[in-house]
Amino acid sequence: MVNIAILGFGTVGSGVAEVMRENAQSIAHNAAEEIRVKYILDIRDFPGSPFADKMVRDFSVIESDPDVRVVVETIGGAGKAYEFTKRALLAGKSVVTSNKELVSTRGHELLEIAKQRNVNYLFEASVGGGIPIIRPITQCLTANEIDEIYGILNGTTNYILTRMITDGAPFGEILKDAQRLGYAEADPTADVEGYDAARKICILADLCFGKSVDPERIFVEGISGVTLEDVEYARRLGYKIKLLGRAWRLPGGHITAYVAPHLISKTSLLSNVDGVMNGIVVHGNALGECMFYGAGAGKRPTASAVVADVIDAVKHLKARKYLGWDESEPGYVVDAGDVATRWYLRTGSGLEEIGRAFGRVRLISYPGEYPGAGPEEYAFATDEMTGRELSEKCAGMEVRSRFRIL
Amino acid sequence: MVNIAILGFGTVGSGVAEVMRENAQSIAHNAAEEIRVKYILDIRDFPGSPFADKMVRDFSVIESDPDVRVVVETIGGAGKAYEFTKRALLAGKSVVTSNKELVSTRGHELLEIAKQRNVNYLFEASVGGGIPIIRPITQCLTANEIDEIYGILNGTTNYILTRMITDGAPFGEILKDAQRLGYAEADPTADVEGYDAARKICILADLCFGKSVDPERIFVEGISGVTLEDVEYARRLGYKIKLLGRAWRLPGGHITAYVAPHLISKTSLLSNVDGVMNGIVVHGNALGECMFYGAGAGKRPTASAVVADVIDAVKHLKARKYLGWDESEPGYVVDAGDVATRWYLRTGSGLEEIGRAFGRVRLISYPGEYPGAGPEEYAFATDEMTGRELSEKCAGMEVRSRFRIL
Repeated sequence: MVNIAILGFGTVGSGVAEVMRENAQSIAHNAAEEIRVKYILDIRDFPGSPFADKMVRDFSVIESDPDVRVVVETIGGAGKAYEFTKRALLAGKSVVTSNKELVSTRGHELLEIAKQRNVNYLFEASVGGGIPIIRPITQCLTANEIDEIYGILNGTTNYILTRMITDGAPFGEILKDAQRLGYAEADPTADVEGYDAARKICILADLCFGKSVDPERIFVEGISGVTLEDVEYARRLGYKIKLLGRAWRLPGGHITAYVAPHLISKTSLLSNVDGVMNGIVVHGNALGECMFYGAGAGKRPTASAVVADVIDAVKHLKARKYLGWDESEPGYVVDAGDVATRWYLRTGSGLEEIGRAFGRVRLISYPGEYPGAGPEEYAFATDEMTGRELSEKCAGMEVRSRFRIL
Repeated sequence: MVNIAILGFGTVGSGVAEVMRENAQSIAHNAAEEIRVKYILDIRDFPGSPFADKMVRDFSVIESDPDVRVVVETIGGAGKAYEFTKRALLAGKSVVTSNKELVSTRGHELLEIAKQRNVNYLFEASVGGGIPIIRPITQCLTANEIDEIYGILNGTTNYILTRMITDGAPFGEILKDAQRLGYAEADPTADVEGYDAARKICILADLCFGKSVDPERIFVEGISGVTLEDVEYARRLGYKIKLLGRAWRLPGGHITAYVAPHLISKTSLLSNVDGVMNGIVVHGNALGECMFYGAGAGKRPTASAVVADVIDAVKHLKARKYLGWDESEPGYVVDAGDVATRWYLRTGSGLEEIGRAFGRVRLISYPGEYPGAGPEEYAFATDEMTGRELSEKCAGMEVRSRFRIL
């Protein structure tokens, strides 16, 4: 029998305890070992909980108990979570987490400590919730040079964009609805402004390309600037607007990584990933393209991924798993503004200005609006160019929206 | 350095050799060990090949060389492939394969031998080509009781059905085209009649539910009976016709498994898996639904999965991987005709007969065809019932098509 401890009894932590109890038999079968939750650390009391007898308030109880071989960290953030993770690893315990902030900012350091102590630091649940993605990348696509990875990595923003498309209601209205329904937090900034997706694409880039990418240093644009006009213009082009995290290899050992709204063709599978669901596309030089789809958040899906890691940690108490990446050198990540892409542009400037800057373009106009009849705005797609080139071309123009086209 | 041997230098075998060479550096990094192809077994000569110096014709050279730790079997079928796999395992070598016929019929036995000899028998490429599916099921969804698995498991039939929908051309015509383009074999029976998909769903059911399912004993229906009328009627209902392999848990420790054309709602992600691509949906009690998508066949995608297994085998030369299932008892697999589903029915019988058998149904009629105007046929969707119940209701009726609705 292997004993584990859970740090934090919030949504994910309590989900882990529940799934461990509910599926105890099949989990024991899959781990070839019975797994028992010995402690749950939380500063709050849970008097009515079926797990009340496992509650402790002092981390050193867990740290100093040699019976505890695996610690599940579901505290979140990079404060206490960082301290306890480090102490647990140093005490020779494997750590499993769903904490994307910690993995994306301190992953390299924590994986190094795990390596030194011959234990594991596993984080399948940090990206894509319940979707298997970390392990597929590190174990299933190992025959490939991975060229590119991108996806819908945040359920809240995907829910909002999906409902803007289906309901034709503006961003602010849908956001309020999402908050009421529990799909968006009271302070939605991390989701809506793309910071959550940024952490996730950085973890994916770390794994796919082998070097640290700092989420604080990549270009991040959220969805608060997406309007119903953009949604409608995109539709006419045969596209949907989705918030994507993207990272790919560039010549010379460089990569780029960023988060931004994109127009995606409706014929692509990813454009059909709607509502709170996530979808992640990986491109390898042998495999070609594959996609992983599922619930990117939620109590039980996230617990599913955490518990799979617990089982893996239990199976690898002696043999360490190969997981990790190197520090990156300055200049490794090329700024998103310096890589070329096609752009969607919505502008209040006139046809003459557009023509001077972009030459002949195919306009997407409202029904009943014709050039010459004085439309209020024009929207069109550009050829491939970098963000900087686009900004130069648009100097002096009134730009209302500019989004990348996938 | 670890030496491996490849059995068979056909499409998959040569793809494995190529990917091993092309991605040698990253493969060595991922395996933490250099991997070298020492022998390639084939009865044919390949004088111009860059691998000509590795060719051998006698398996015992490989069998008796203690340097060879991993054998890649890409011969196919259950004859020589079975013999060599058994001998390799008995000689203490791990075996990696893409051979769905062998795994689905002899998997249990070969996995037992692997267990006894403390080596691995791995077969990621046997289902879904390059799509990671075996390892996600056995390592990523381990926290779940898997309730159900289904998917588009055969690229040839999916290509034919997709083109029937997009081109409006009949089955026979598209099949000929597919043969010309290399998407279908000269003898297309195994693909078109569903036998290939049957082997794959049986392997998935073995892994998900833990007991052997014999592909020779499950219900299998191919796509040769799907007509353009069916495609059109399905479209009017908001569905697409796809060939699915399906397996799910039933009460009392039973399961069912079968292959048959299904009507799938166009709103589902799986219905957008088109052309030669495969998509596999897994439902777990913690995770909910997730989907894996990618190239289900082809030289390099299949090689991608085979080489990932080779890397895994090299990483587990000492520690065995947990993979396997038990023999099943008689009655474990419930016949597809005994599980309930909704049905799509196309019939040449009249409204009166339909009414007697099914009560009030919503007809799907051709434009310009109205009840009473003497249409040649009727199509409609039924309530949930077993295949046997459907057959009883239809006794005496002229049934032209009957397909399940997912």
